[in-house]
Amino acid sequence: MDRVATLLVACPDRKGIVASLAQVLYGHGANILDSDQHTDPVAALFFQRIRFDLSTLTTDKVALEHGIKEVGERFQMDWRLAYGHHKRKIAIFASKQEHCLYDLLIRYRAGELACEVAMVISNHPDAEPIARHFDVPFHHIPVTAATKAEAEEKACELIAAANVDLIVLARYMQILSAELVAKFPSRIINIHHSFLPAFVGANPYRQAYVKGVKLIGATSHYVTADLDQGPIIEQATIRCSHRDSVDDLVRKGRDLEKRVLAAAVRYHLEDRILVYAGKTVVFD
Amino acid sequence: MDRVATLLVACPDRKGIVASLAQVLYGHGANILDSDQHTDPVAALFFQRIRFDLSTLTTDKVALEHGIKEVGERFQMDWRLAYGHHKRKIAIFASKQEHCLYDLLIRYRAGELACEVAMVISNHPDAEPIARHFDVPFHHIPVTAATKAEAEEKACELIAAANVDLIVLARYMQILSAELVAKFPSRIINIHHSFLPAFVGANPYRQAYVKGVKLIGATSHYVTADLDQGPIIEQATIRCSHRDSVDDLVRKGRDLEKRVLAAAVRYHLEDRILVYAGKTVVFD
Amino acid sequence: MDRVATLLVACPDRKGIVASLAQVLYGHGANILDSDQHTDPVAALFFQRIRFDLSTLTTDKVALEHGIKEVGERFQMDWRLAYGHHKRKIAIFASKQEHCLYDLLIRYRAGELACEVAMVISNHPDAEPIARHFDVPFHHIPVTAATKAEAEEKACELIAAANVDLIVLARYMQILSAELVAKFPSRIINIHHSFLPAFVGANPYRQAYVKGVKLIGATSHYVTADLDQGPIIEQATIRCSHRDSVDDLVRKGRDLEKRVLAAAVRYHLEDRILVYAGKTVVFD
Amino acid sequence: MDRVATLLVACPDRKGIVASLAQVLYGHGANILDSDQHTDPVAALFFQRIRFDLSTLTTDKVALEHGIKEVGERFQMDWRLAYGHHKRKIAIFASKQEHCLYDLLIRYRAGELACEVAMVISNHPDAEPIARHFDVPFHHIPVTAATKAEAEEKACELIAAANVDLIVLARYMQILSAELVAKFPSRIINIHHSFLPAFVGANPYRQAYVKGVKLIGATSHYVTADLDQGPIIEQATIRCSHRDSVDDLVRKGRDLEKRVLAAAVRYHLEDRILVYAGKTVVFD
Repeated sequence: MDRVATLLVACPDRKGIVASLAQVLYGHGANILDSDQHTDPVAALFFQRIRFDLSTLTTDKVALEHGIKEVGERFQMDWRLAYGHHKRKIAIFASKQEHCLYDLLIRYRAGELACEVAMVISNHPDAEPIARHFDVPFHHIPVTAATKAEAEEKACELIAAANVDLIVLARYMQILSAELVAKFPSRIINIHHSFLPAFVGANPYRQAYVKGVKLIGATSHYVTADLDQGPIIEQATIRCSHRDSVDDLVRKGRDLEKRVLAAAVRYHLEDRILVYAGKTVVFD
Repeated sequence: MDRVATLLVACPDRKGIVASLAQVLYGHGANILDSDQHTDPVAALFFQRIRFDLSTLTTDKVALEHGIKEVGERFQMDWRLAYGHHKRKIAIFASKQEHCLYDLLIRYRAGELACEVAMVISNHPDAEPIARHFDVPFHHIPVTAATKAEAEEKACELIAAANVDLIVLARYMQILSAELVAKFPSRIINIHHSFLPAFVGANPYRQAYVKGVKLIGATSHYVTADLDQGPIIEQATIRCSHRDSVDDLVRKGRDLEKRVLAAAVRYHLEDRILVYAGKTVVFD
Repeated sequence: MDRVATLLVACPDRKGIVASLAQVLYGHGANILDSDQHTDPVAALFFQRIRFDLSTLTTDKVALEHGIKEVGERFQMDWRLAYGHHKRKIAIFASKQEHCLYDLLIRYRAGELACEVAMVISNHPDAEPIARHFDVPFHHIPVTAATKAEAEEKACELIAAANVDLIVLARYMQILSAELVAKFPSRIINIHHSFLPAFVGANPYRQAYVKGVKLIGATSHYVTADLDQGPIIEQATIRCSHRDSVDDLVRKGRDLEKRVLAAAVRYHLEDRILVYAGKTVVFD
Repeated sequence: MDRVATLLVACPDRKGIVASLAQVLYGHGANILDSDQHTDPVAALFFQRIRFDLSTLTTDKVALEHGIKEVGERFQMDWRLAYGHHKRKIAIFASKQEHCLYDLLIRYRAGELACEVAMVISNHPDAEPIARHFDVPFHHIPVTAATKAEAEEKACELIAAANVDLIVLARYMQILSAELVAKFPSRIINIHHSFLPAFVGANPYRQAYVKGVKLIGATSHYVTADLDQGPIIEQATIRCSHRDSVDDLVRKGRDLEKRVLAAAVRYHLEDRILVYAGKTVVFD
């Protein structure tokens, strides 16, 4: 992992992009391990993810980055280069429901998530023993209507001080302000407990029960200023029936929420996601 | 099959219902093969489906029905008794898309659907060779804005003449009038090509593409006066990704539509569905 | 829950069983909440699960049980009556892999499992902090080839002393002796990390990788003297591809194992499972 | 489609492969639409699929193929270049069960399969009206123990005369001889009605019923001399329960078989499959 880098690229579609990128990597001695590409013919956009081995580099990182920059300018690329040895820091926001929090921390401990969980922030004290059990710093920041701005400010300070790259809302029951959201474009992941765009807003399991659907779902998405409208990263559904009470739907939904949120976090940390036109490309 | 009957019951929940029904069947010598029950504690309603063997009857059908009627009155039951030897007649309405039509006719021929397909009605002539291939009568009833009422009337006459019990809209692209719908309460099944309540209305696959969802779905439901709002019978989803064009979604969706519509028709024909409060109990 | 009882019944199929059971419950004033029934026509066996409300009982439990016993003798029934207020005790056996252990304890804490986790037993000390975090007694019982019999004896003593009803092998990496298995017929649940009967034995994920399957699975089953051959309770699969290394399969498999084991434990605790002919009836 | 070509490549892994292939395509003016790559680190093998646009070619096909050949020799590549305008011919072998045959022909007619169905061959006459309905030539070749060799010879002649590229066994109930199989390496696709490697051989649905599995499956694979052991292309599963008789499993299985076989045929026709080490890479 330490010797692997990932290059993510988005640009207007044009001939020669693949060749130019492959050439620059080859020219510096990098060995491509994996590459995945997508062209959106409607939007005329090109997307690529390239994982390559740095251990055979014949120049150095500075020279390599310089070469990529040159190609990037030629093709008007948005690009991002991530080195495997650089573990990104994440902050998990939680409230009273603890299943997603537990799930992320267990996966973190099992080595499934290539990151450092820098902190757990909660508006309730209940999560503290959980964070402690996993040796993760915990901050209790209560939120009331009156103190909301102040609470966000405090959270932002902690996040800035720890150099946090990604915020994960693990069933965090507070709505973030537009200001906070604007600071972390495509860097806040939320889990919504329905198959969006069905059942936006509050109490989706109750809405599903009343409607009598035969499947319930969960959706992980990047947070934007529009509530429950951000780019969708991952979704899953599970069968339900007339036998399921709202409580049963909640129980079944927890399993979906855990998987769908964890998948989104993993995709983000492995640089698999590109956002455009309000939706995502997820290279799997 | 000829010696099997199915009793479907709905009534206010009360002690003694199960015992009374079991007793009346036992008293007439019927052997219960299968019984499934559901109580909605919120609505305080009781639902049951009982399949029983008539071959051991010690009285006769008239006496048995009389006995059930008596219990039914005591418990204010809505009940329906169907005999296995009585094959219900269905009419399939189709337009230009033929995948659901083919699918139903193939299942019909394979013996999966316990019914007689009395006719195929289409506003396009294309389906005629398909109906003919399966030896099913075909009626071409063109529909224009001007002739819509007249066309429906003609369809109704054909249906009435053939004693049709169930209308199946197999991707039929015309909206039925409220009058026609009112004549067949819980006896018209439609397939909608999305995971309702997401993407109601036209072009759901395009809507799904624009939204960038990671699963698409299909929903079969009884038709009510409210478009795409009738009680849901069955739903299924399938994964999609950024790689899928609208055409790919259409192709993937066809597989869902076929399965989800066929399941709903089978459930209906096997007397597995009870409707209440805008939703369904489906005994499986 | 405290006022609810569950009756599980298996017997040779015959007319009048449903009526007799419903009658005896009704006669004592019990209200049937839920009943599910199955007849295996090949084996000529009848199975039923009835959940009923005790709060309206007009006699008492002794009288009710006497009545059921009388019907049971008439129809040669195997039957089991469980009262909702009686929480069964379970022992979880774990080794180094902790995902299933965590999963069960989190569900236990969330109230998903109607039991008391009496203890965690492990042949490794690693699980101790986990058990402690959830306030569950922990016993470290190392196992070597030489001490195996002795270790089992010690485990049996602990289990007997705590009145344990169900043993759950949460990726426990020791094979239980035939003697221990014989003491707990249909009361030891194991999780096997493949879609049985494919890939029995060791290293199923490696076997799956070598074979190049496109789905991997997990299977929970009751433990019998025949390794990996006991009655299957629950199974699930997930897609995989050529991109998945053995490690990826292990990661994906963990999610399956957790869900499939937890489902089996929940079904057992809710008295939904009947075993016959080497397989299970699971009333859902 | 007419202006698109697909290049499939397999070779020992080495630095510079991606760059060299991209360079040769770019040098001839081809525009890469889509590329997918896989490296098996255990086998040290490299695989790639590149779809590119020919309409911008600045040289011609002969020159392009010459260029690819040169790169191919340098890297010891197995490679295959397919032009979109060249529709491959397939022969469908069927017996009495008609669901897979119908399914393939309906998809063919709907434009889902980029091929020409050159003929249907069956050892029973029943499929003739089906083939005729879809305007596909039909050949009835009865097979008995005595005439098997002769029948195969006749089939081979028809196939050779029509220049058939792919044989699809759509529930064809005869085992092909090793000689015939050897003539079409990775060019005969079969559907097996179980989740291989579980339940090889005859009557897999009955085997599944006896075992009491909770999911049944279907598997499409290339045919090799070893029965049911060829490289797996696609698999799917569906839930079943104690309620399902063998007939129910057969009915549920038909839906799986159709989808899983059709997917494999489509992957083959779109040049998405590479075979190595007894398994497949399927670029999706």
